[in-house]
Amino acid sequence: MSLSKNKIKLIRSLKEKKARNEHHTFVAEGTKLVNDLMASCRCQFLAALPEVLTAHPGMKADEMVTASENELARATFLKTAPQVIALFYQPDQPAGEIVLRGRLSLALDGVQDPGNVGTILRIADWFGIDQILCSSDTADIYNPKTVQATMGAIARVKTYYGDLPSLLSGDADLPVYGTFLEGTNIYGEPLTTEGVIVLGSEGKGISSEMKKRINRKLFIPSYPAGRSTSESLNVAAATAVVCAEFRRRQG
Amino acid sequence: MSLSKNKIKLIRSLKEKKARNEHHTFVAEGTKLVNDLMASCRCQFLAALPEVLTAHPGMKADEMVTASENELARATFLKTAPQVIALFYQPDQPAGEIVLRGRLSLALDGVQDPGNVGTILRIADWFGIDQILCSSDTADIYNPKTVQATMGAIARVKTYYGDLPSLLSGDADLPVYGTFLEGTNIYGEPLTTEGVIVLGSEGKGISSEMKKRINRKLFIPSYPAGRSTSESLNVAAATAVVCAEFRRRQG
Repeated sequence: MSLSKNKIKLIRSLKEKKARNEHHTFVAEGTKLVNDLMASCRCQFLAALPEVLTAHPGMKADEMVTASENELARATFLKTAPQVIALFYQPDQPAGEIVLRGRLSLALDGVQDPGNVGTILRIADWFGIDQILCSSDTADIYNPKTVQATMGAIARVKTYYGDLPSLLSGDADLPVYGTFLEGTNIYGEPLTTEGVIVLGSEGKGISSEMKKRINRKLFIPSYPAGRSTSESLNVAAATAVVCAEFRRRQG
Repeated sequence: MSLSKNKIKLIRSLKEKKARNEHHTFVAEGTKLVNDLMASCRCQFLAALPEVLTAHPGMKADEMVTASENELARATFLKTAPQVIALFYQPDQPAGEIVLRGRLSLALDGVQDPGNVGTILRIADWFGIDQILCSSDTADIYNPKTVQATMGAIARVKTYYGDLPSLLSGDADLPVYGTFLEGTNIYGEPLTTEGVIVLGSEGKGISSEMKKRINRKLFIPSYPAGRSTSESLNVAAATAVVCAEFRRRQG
């Protein structure tokens, strides 16, 4: 069994969201990521170098084939061909109400770069935030670039897509944080152990609808204070600083 | 005057480092970035929509042409065609000795992703760090992806490429920081107002040679402490957390 032309075509088609949704699958590449995902997602198809299958008996899929370096190079989305490429079934969006009390969650409001979304999942995972609400115009977490950027965090962090204000509705007292240039210095503000941290789009920031829901406006101070500089931090960098500070207070 | 086929070919050739070094130029795209660079770099060539030239009289170049959307779309490295594409001369590496005392600097040790390098420049700029030492195997700051990711910080942050241990030599007492899984919790450590923060390669971490030069090993705690999670933060995310913490102490 080798990696057929049809399978290579199928894998490459999954770059597009439409095809991913049709097949209800997504692509993961590389030994570590594929192994991480084995614990939480069912694997539909897996192609790997023969020695990789021998070395990782935990890699199981409904359909498994050995592949040559050349075949993997033709199928991959990466610059350097991985040793394994797998298709996983997309987990169903968890049913039931989203619990926002008693924990920290992130909300992505139109974050459009797939790499940023993946990096944010990885940051959330590091800081023990296991739930992310995403507006419908946020990049799809199953985009191959996103999946790779999560470095496995996609297996541990739950995501919900939908209309953000609706996902948050029903609890007007819930602390909802966002970062703004006119916000209050984060280091001087009380930070709660529960609530939602909203991250805005790279170009447009937080939407006017979500601004209304935010009841705690924060600011990450630049240095020296007030110096004219880049207008903002990259959204993933801002996420890292804010999450680190929330957790430092609890540490 | 319009954007000729030859110029489009020239612009696209500058994706490669070899061509950039031959021409001693780099590409910048978009009104904000090009305007930011005007203050610090000489512009060799500029192509823009006619209305952009009218609206931004500060945009000056040795050679300027108006261009159609279609022409800009053929020349761009971005997904969406910008309103202006410019070629800037690469500034010469600053002459004289690198001053490491009395300030914070970053050192990139094999950071290979152009986007990460650009994001790190943007983070440095935000936190008032205006000098970055780069190992020779760190991604070139003039890579178009890097230039765009800096969002203009490339105009304000100085970079030096070379052999990192040599660039640092001669001052054995200089505080040199690095993050390691076995480091000490950054929140419990004294942080100096001068020194170098070393950031390692995405795959291999900090090189063994640079490890020897690091005299303060830090750790960004995950949450809850000791939980098994993603093995690490993305290098740009870690840079953001570390720089924010250094500056918080000084704030």
